[in-house]
Amino acid sequence: MNEKLLERLEAYEKTCFALGHAMGILSYDGNTSAPPKSAIVRGETMGELSRMSYELTTGPEAVKLLEDLEAAKDTLDPVTRRKAVLMRRIFDETDCIPVDEYVEYVKQREESEHVWKTAKQTNDFKLFEPYLQKMFDYARKFALYRAPDKDPYTTQLDSFEKGLTAEKCDKFFGDLKKRLVPIAAKAAEKSADIDVGPISVPFPVEKQKLLSDYLMDVIGLDKERCALGETEHPFTTDFSKYDVRITTHYYETMPAASMYSVIHEGGHALYELGIGDDIALGMLGSGVSMAIHESQSRFYENIVGRSEAFCELVLPKMKEIFSPLLDGVDVKTFWKMVTKVQPSLVRTEADEVTYCLHIMIRYELEKKMMSGELKAGDLPGEWNRLYKEYLGIDVPSDKEGVLQDVHWSEGLIGYFPSYAIGSAYGAQYLKEMGKEFDVWEAVRSGNIAKISAWLENKIWRHGKMIDPCELFESICGPLDANVFADYLEQKYI
Amino acid sequence: MNEKLLERLEAYEKTCFALGHAMGILSYDGNTSAPPKSAIVRGETMGELSRMSYELTTGPEAVKLLEDLEAAKDTLDPVTRRKAVLMRRIFDETDCIPVDEYVEYVKQREESEHVWKTAKQTNDFKLFEPYLQKMFDYARKFALYRAPDKDPYTTQLDSFEKGLTAEKCDKFFGDLKKRLVPIAAKAAEKSADIDVGPISVPFPVEKQKLLSDYLMDVIGLDKERCALGETEHPFTTDFSKYDVRITTHYYETMPAASMYSVIHEGGHALYELGIGDDIALGMLGSGVSMAIHESQSRFYENIVGRSEAFCELVLPKMKEIFSPLLDGVDVKTFWKMVTKVQPSLVRTEADEVTYCLHIMIRYELEKKMMSGELKAGDLPGEWNRLYKEYLGIDVPSDKEGVLQDVHWSEGLIGYFPSYAIGSAYGAQYLKEMGKEFDVWEAVRSGNIAKISAWLENKIWRHGKMIDPCELFESICGPLDANVFADYLEQKYI
Repeated sequence: MNEKLLERLEAYEKTCFALGHAMGILSYDGNTSAPPKSAIVRGETMGELSRMSYELTTGPEAVKLLEDLEAAKDTLDPVTRRKAVLMRRIFDETDCIPVDEYVEYVKQREESEHVWKTAKQTNDFKLFEPYLQKMFDYARKFALYRAPDKDPYTTQLDSFEKGLTAEKCDKFFGDLKKRLVPIAAKAAEKSADIDVGPISVPFPVEKQKLLSDYLMDVIGLDKERCALGETEHPFTTDFSKYDVRITTHYYETMPAASMYSVIHEGGHALYELGIGDDIALGMLGSGVSMAIHESQSRFYENIVGRSEAFCELVLPKMKEIFSPLLDGVDVKTFWKMVTKVQPSLVRTEADEVTYCLHIMIRYELEKKMMSGELKAGDLPGEWNRLYKEYLGIDVPSDKEGVLQDVHWSEGLIGYFPSYAIGSAYGAQYLKEMGKEFDVWEAVRSGNIAKISAWLENKIWRHGKMIDPCELFESICGPLDANVFADYLEQKYI
Repeated sequence: MNEKLLERLEAYEKTCFALGHAMGILSYDGNTSAPPKSAIVRGETMGELSRMSYELTTGPEAVKLLEDLEAAKDTLDPVTRRKAVLMRRIFDETDCIPVDEYVEYVKQREESEHVWKTAKQTNDFKLFEPYLQKMFDYARKFALYRAPDKDPYTTQLDSFEKGLTAEKCDKFFGDLKKRLVPIAAKAAEKSADIDVGPISVPFPVEKQKLLSDYLMDVIGLDKERCALGETEHPFTTDFSKYDVRITTHYYETMPAASMYSVIHEGGHALYELGIGDDIALGMLGSGVSMAIHESQSRFYENIVGRSEAFCELVLPKMKEIFSPLLDGVDVKTFWKMVTKVQPSLVRTEADEVTYCLHIMIRYELEKKMMSGELKAGDLPGEWNRLYKEYLGIDVPSDKEGVLQDVHWSEGLIGYFPSYAIGSAYGAQYLKEMGKEFDVWEAVRSGNIAKISAWLENKIWRHGKMIDPCELFESICGPLDANVFADYLEQKYI
């Protein structure tokens, strides 16, 4: 009897996968290749496909399948049992939202992202304001549909990181802030004299592309399964472990921007490429949560990529590619430049130390937006006020301020904390890894594969098999902001 | 009552459109951005989506809608009446094929194209042979499902060009061959001394990209709705008049290759971008047939783009872009170089005169493959024999021979004649256009818009409203290979 059940599940997963795959490609294409006016029609198509997806996941066949799976629970293998759990979650998260509202949301989200692009380009917050408000309104409304008695922001956090609450976040950010503010101040003071001149001259974009290609090899990305594109805001998207896309952006006079984007997105990609073959194509076949995802990307970007050992590894090739631009630069100098700490405007270009202050600002703002304490129109002012308070800097334009990130325009509200938690997770991995082998020796000798194998075994291969907090704690024990602070202190002070 | 009916039709069209849009983007992405190993999973997704599409177009709701539309025929507006006709055609073409075979075909086609790519790259015909045979077997089988009593090749031709038969094709190619063979011989003799050296040195790809951008402006492509990508075999694809993609390929020492690819694909794109607003998003909202499509692309590429007037128009800007590479080249010399007639191996790089000989070879071969007279394994030998016979040249490798075109790998069998018929259509447009205004003066002065307006009014705006032969004859009278031959003779002899 289970055989039939498994067949039904497989057919269900295949159709879900196809719709998700199609929507993912439409979105990726919209971000990389599509002409501007395609947005409206793409929104319509996304709406139609999400209607089909909605009907598929909440329709009578899905309900019957889910009931049958739950009834047969004790006889199911662990993978199938887990799938039933996730299917139930998806059903509960979807079925409570009226279908037309859901479809309308998907269309609006498509338009919102499109408008955000223009607004950022033209530094026109007013243009984006109503869309931004709408995205928050939807998030709040849907969160209340999903859990009428729960704080809506916690519901959002939970959707990105199962088990995360606003309370836990408050504690984490509270602990971190206490340590981070003095570390950042001292590190910035220590960095003040570092001259980044040698990496602030024009580095031809064509050569930066060669560097991207080289870095993909260094960190071990399989190019048969992973391709690099270009986009305004770098991101990673996966359709299966056989098809992962990373993107970067090139600024002529900031070669480090693309360099670290490639490594960051490469970390995301490695996670997806490392999903176990046994679960690759079904419901469990991608990363389990945003914080676990960011813990991979930020581990490769900062802990590996911004280590002195990594600079030692890649500088010779960089000198060759950009010759003669880096001729006079030695490893120590290069490392100092890419680890210079300095309060700055743009999150994605921020150094490893001040980065989490950028996140805290977004965390505060989105929490207040979700509670209704703030409206979209208040955001530019509040944003600028907090940048002054946390980072001591003035924001000269919304383009470099509240309009800089794509997330809110796409309805990704409650996502930002993942970056900080992911960063902290990374420091805890490093501590555990160090008990087993010399991490810096592995990096220095180009044996990044050793690090990747560790992460693959502990994390990647499991896909969505284990909930994120449980997965993390089974490797490192409880989340501890102090381990992360210790790591930063040791590296930067 | 009709109002409800129109609503049902609109809902049906929207869902069809969304599935087609998704499959189109998946395919475009697969050809431009996706990593190699993505093919198998994409095939699965294409299979699932085409199953949905199959079920949608042949399901009970579609049948009921179609019956209701046909019953209400006399009360419908012309656009809706036309939609009912096309819906009936789609139903008849689809419903006769068992769904599982259809889905399997879509998956196989995806794989076939993927294998073709590798086979071409590695010059390995054997690798591709079984897929190629399979594509022909499917074409034959499906043609017999569709019209059991008809010659399967005619059924294929008809699917690309409503009303076209193998008989008509035989007559057209017969007439053309008689005139073309002597013209090609004389033109080649006349061209023998033309030295293409100045456009056979390295032209930096980055600068060729600037040229593409310029040419898109020259022929009037709206970049808000049309984007340019890169791919092995240039093509155009449209998702609506708000989203058209053209692609090109860059060869460093053959700048004319990309130049004329951009203009050719640009001609396809203009057609799609010029569909009437009133029919833009429904079933009628794209080009009506392959020959009409090719008649646009080849009109812009050859009649416009390879005219002396066009060379006069674009050479100054080209000199600026590629400075100092074209410094010593005058208009006449440039025009002579881009109209040099010389039998060659690769269709897409062929001159305007010998081009149709390439098509005749493919026509002969696919007709014999469809009748079963030839098997895939015979194709390399037959291909090479016909290239010797028609063009007098030896084919050194399958890569430059039977593996050069993507079409058969994608199941596009019966498509090739469209290129020749489209070329002939173009000469007839030119004759008609010339009765109304001085075409060369329009080109020389950069007023390509005048030509485009003529084509938009006569052809583009109608979309699929009128069947292709009827549309063409209403503008130019019957297809006449001699008008095309006259045009070539006048230009080249």
